[in-house]
Amino acid sequence: MSEAAKTLEGWYCLHDFRAINWEKWKYLSTEERQSITNELLGLLEKWETTEARKAGSHALYSIVGQKADLSIMLLRPTMEELNEIENAFNKTRFAEYTIPTYSYVSVVELSNYLPASVDPNEDPEIQARLKPTLPKSKYICFYPMNKRREGNDNWYMLPMEERKTLMRSHGMIGRGYAGKVKQIITGSVGFDDWEWGVTLFSDDVLQFKKLVYEMRFDEVSARYGEFGSFFVGNLLLKESVPNYLHI
Amino acid sequence: MSEAAKTLEGWYCLHDFRAINWEKWKYLSTEERQSITNELLGLLEKWETTEARKAGSHALYSIVGQKADLSIMLLRPTMEELNEIENAFNKTRFAEYTIPTYSYVSVVELSNYLPASVDPNEDPEIQARLKPTLPKSKYICFYPMNKRREGNDNWYMLPMEERKTLMRSHGMIGRGYAGKVKQIITGSVGFDDWEWGVTLFSDDVLQFKKLVYEMRFDEVSARYGEFGSFFVGNLLLKESVPNYLHI
Amino acid sequence: MSEAAKTLEGWYCLHDFRAINWEKWKYLSTEERQSITNELLGLLEKWETTEARKAGSHALYSIVGQKADLSIMLLRPTMEELNEIENAFNKTRFAEYTIPTYSYVSVVELSNYLPASVDPNEDPEIQARLKPTLPKSKYICFYPMNKRREGNDNWYMLPMEERKTLMRSHGMIGRGYAGKVKQIITGSVGFDDWEWGVTLFSDDVLQFKKLVYEMRFDEVSARYGEFGSFFVGNLLLKESVPNYLHI
Amino acid sequence: MSEAAKTLEGWYCLHDFRAINWEKWKYLSTEERQSITNELLGLLEKWETTEARKAGSHALYSIVGQKADLSIMLLRPTMEELNEIENAFNKTRFAEYTIPTYSYVSVVELSNYLPASVDPNEDPEIQARLKPTLPKSKYICFYPMNKRREGNDNWYMLPMEERKTLMRSHGMIGRGYAGKVKQIITGSVGFDDWEWGVTLFSDDVLQFKKLVYEMRFDEVSARYGEFGSFFVGNLLLKESVPNYLHI
Amino acid sequence: MSEAAKTLEGWYCLHDFRAINWEKWKYLSTEERQSITNELLGLLEKWETTEARKAGSHALYSIVGQKADLSIMLLRPTMEELNEIENAFNKTRFAEYTIPTYSYVSVVELSNYLPASVDPNEDPEIQARLKPTLPKSKYICFYPMNKRREGNDNWYMLPMEERKTLMRSHGMIGRGYAGKVKQIITGSVGFDDWEWGVTLFSDDVLQFKKLVYEMRFDEVSARYGEFGSFFVGNLLLKESVPNYLHI
Repeated sequence: MSEAAKTLEGWYCLHDFRAINWEKWKYLSTEERQSITNELLGLLEKWETTEARKAGSHALYSIVGQKADLSIMLLRPTMEELNEIENAFNKTRFAEYTIPTYSYVSVVELSNYLPASVDPNEDPEIQARLKPTLPKSKYICFYPMNKRREGNDNWYMLPMEERKTLMRSHGMIGRGYAGKVKQIITGSVGFDDWEWGVTLFSDDVLQFKKLVYEMRFDEVSARYGEFGSFFVGNLLLKESVPNYLHI
Repeated sequence: MSEAAKTLEGWYCLHDFRAINWEKWKYLSTEERQSITNELLGLLEKWETTEARKAGSHALYSIVGQKADLSIMLLRPTMEELNEIENAFNKTRFAEYTIPTYSYVSVVELSNYLPASVDPNEDPEIQARLKPTLPKSKYICFYPMNKRREGNDNWYMLPMEERKTLMRSHGMIGRGYAGKVKQIITGSVGFDDWEWGVTLFSDDVLQFKKLVYEMRFDEVSARYGEFGSFFVGNLLLKESVPNYLHI
Repeated sequence: MSEAAKTLEGWYCLHDFRAINWEKWKYLSTEERQSITNELLGLLEKWETTEARKAGSHALYSIVGQKADLSIMLLRPTMEELNEIENAFNKTRFAEYTIPTYSYVSVVELSNYLPASVDPNEDPEIQARLKPTLPKSKYICFYPMNKRREGNDNWYMLPMEERKTLMRSHGMIGRGYAGKVKQIITGSVGFDDWEWGVTLFSDDVLQFKKLVYEMRFDEVSARYGEFGSFFVGNLLLKESVPNYLHI
Repeated sequence: MSEAAKTLEGWYCLHDFRAINWEKWKYLSTEERQSITNELLGLLEKWETTEARKAGSHALYSIVGQKADLSIMLLRPTMEELNEIENAFNKTRFAEYTIPTYSYVSVVELSNYLPASVDPNEDPEIQARLKPTLPKSKYICFYPMNKRREGNDNWYMLPMEERKTLMRSHGMIGRGYAGKVKQIITGSVGFDDWEWGVTLFSDDVLQFKKLVYEMRFDEVSARYGEFGSFFVGNLLLKESVPNYLHI
Repeated sequence: MSEAAKTLEGWYCLHDFRAINWEKWKYLSTEERQSITNELLGLLEKWETTEARKAGSHALYSIVGQKADLSIMLLRPTMEELNEIENAFNKTRFAEYTIPTYSYVSVVELSNYLPASVDPNEDPEIQARLKPTLPKSKYICFYPMNKRREGNDNWYMLPMEERKTLMRSHGMIGRGYAGKVKQIITGSVGFDDWEWGVTLFSDDVLQFKKLVYEMRFDEVSARYGEFGSFFVGNLLLKESVPNYLHI
């Protein structure tokens, strides 16, 4: 059985990073700002309803530094729904006060190293991991990554057994952070410019640094990992949005 | 006979990716938006007439994520026609509400490993593949690629026999997706920044991921493939355009 | 004990580089410029109060060349505070006359090669280094960096003992500049695109060149160092801000 | 005699690529567009006069895809003249409707592997190649390139004899396209970011692809060639400019 | 004695490249253009006074191609003065009609392979080279560069003796251009993104190409040289500025 066939996919995922055009926002009247804030809150409520129905999930964070102000992470059962939400967002008045800075298209993915006796379509734990409700952790960390294919460091030329062994020890590090960091892996081969997106959630932002740094010494990352941009942010609850946007 | 001479070329191809300036679009009156939408629909109808005459083909998709909103893929018998369509599009009113984000110039290409007894100019199947009518599949995936020339991983220094053997096993993977993914290879050496463009069509977006991922373990991709940006999108039928552009 | 566990972290750090839109600034009336300058001075005073309370620190420098006009370096106990200051700054009127050009998110870091007998939470010297008050030196130099992971030059595949030995000799060079250059290392694995940020302070700008150049011949930099953009600037005291912004 | 001394240089060369700001262009009145078009035609006539006097040459092409709309290639005896033409163009009204997208500064160059008995300053064929009148071929292809200096693939470390042998076989491929593709090599070491610019002219656009692809299997390109962006375009005759710019 | 200690530094150096916003410039009235031109001429006169006092130097050139229109090279005894001039320029009215395109911060540098008996602070020739008055040559060429640190081609891992030998043969090439090309090396380790800036002056622009090309075959460049963007320009005398800016 090929490698591709052994991976399980769940909900589709869009990471949408936006800077806020604060100057433009400030020159609105207080009433207009309030009305547009309400429009945004309405959208968030709609997404919450979807989340409550287990028909999707989302997360809103305030990114630190100039790469973005907002990170909107969206999970939906189909690529069409992601596209519709994206277009609907772009048609809101709020979108006029944002500047797209980065986005990422992927799908929730589990590497299938399950015993053959388990049917993933029946297993509730696996289903919950493929269609997760995103946590309301205090911090988010996102970065895309590739497995390297360079000279003697070519992941895709390794025998499957070796890759399995390497991934197992890699996974052990992740497990050491269980309860401290929640990790969602999304696959993007064929969808976006890197092979995977990694989204981490934690209530202790330092754990992102410790986890990623510890992994870097592991052969999978040390020899075979290539990393894109890292984004780190603070939870932005719907209740805090009015204050966040207040001038 | 040289390698270049053994490749067959068909219609010229332009991939034109555009973001929509939604804010500007919104500030038009409903009547103006309607009139401009009609102008765009008229253009699409004109292209459909060309397609019906087998004098070209086109595909319109809505791209997911910030890389673009629209992907327009155009096939025509000559480079002049592509340029004329591009310029005509740029002169439409609709174009004022779009922002170019990426484009790709290439030509439909078949690697000619045919038995010598076949005359490609007479063979209807080959002609159909060189001058294809693009399918109306639900999803599109586009990416440009190179064959690597780095240190020991130099495709162009391999003996022809070795390349042939490698490509044959590579092709076997593609054939495993027959009926699920339609693949159009366009060559761009001398025309654009990468050597090939790959356009995939499918009614199951996950098949893009599975196909590209499976191929990545094949030596042709693992050692010799270099990839540009990946674009993924949903079919945008002419009938859906008014709704897509509706504010 | 893993490597990550042996690193000590202190205050979070934001480097915020901004160009000034001088044209826009000039077209304000003198009164408006004065009022906005006062708003900025008020912000600086607030930060000084925080610094006096040992609850954070900051540094303001005027960058040479087109990469930026201003460099604002901020240290705070939490990621939330950095984000709040950033958003508050973006809401000021002064921010309307600046253009973000680069930023860096990190955390003050000490490599923990302490004798086991020392408790870093109790040690006042270590605490002072983790939560430093930034000096008012005449010059600043900032650059981000990685440890290389390429072919035979892969830092993360070296045995810990070898890395320790290499870092010790590297540190010796730094110590040769004691009293001339103050160096603050911030870690950014999981927070930003490079692994570390290096901020140097000195009253003799040539010492930056001498220190970085001397280190480049050291194996840690020569074989394993990868460097991002370098920024160099002159101290901009609060008292000099009105003159700096005077038209 | 050093390598540099053995190269012959002729006219200086500027490739100037421009996108047209179609929206801005459209919002002019028909009269204004006509008047500006006439100004542009006047400039082209002036260049034609220079060309007729054998005091320079130029070529105007319409580029396919988003990289540019127009390619203006200019040859002149001095760097000052190129600069003057560039500045004069920038001062035209037409320039207000263009956006610079890429440019390239170089000088026509012949590798001097002549028998010692030939004096290049006297030889009319060599003089014609150093100061060429650009053909009015239907298609243009431009790309800049370097000779690689990486690990074992370092062109500049090869002995002169080996380079000569490699270039000879490389040249043989080019000669196979004689009558089909005209090739102008311009050197840009010390003038621009790549070492050479290659400009191809043909009445059959496919020949660009065949030529460049065939060469890629030749060791000079396969091991030692590095390529920048490729631009491909259709001839834009002075007579066709009014139609090209017609709204 | 460390390498850093053996290098001599002189005046600080800012290369400031600017494009001119010709459209904006054209829409000024003739009187305004004249008044702003006079303001610029006044600035140049001030710099000439500084140059006459041997308290700095400057050079103004018109760059060929789209990378910039103007190159302003400034030498001053301190980093503060460079910063002041830069800010003063940004506050001029002329600056409103320019767009920053690239800049470089460095310091004039001499590799100190002097006999121990010479005291560089006393030697007038060395002092003149550290604090040079820039020539009014017809042409300028600027490019930044690094010494490579990759695999087996790692300059900084070579023994000092080997580097010395290599540099000596490298210097011989440069000396072959004595009287034809004047070369100013500025060091930028710790100041900007490359390790050195090279500025060449000549009355024969072809000499730049010949010099840089000849050096490329020398092992120091062939194996160890990495180059940034190249800028080439024509002298713009103060007397020619009004004509240069005339519409």
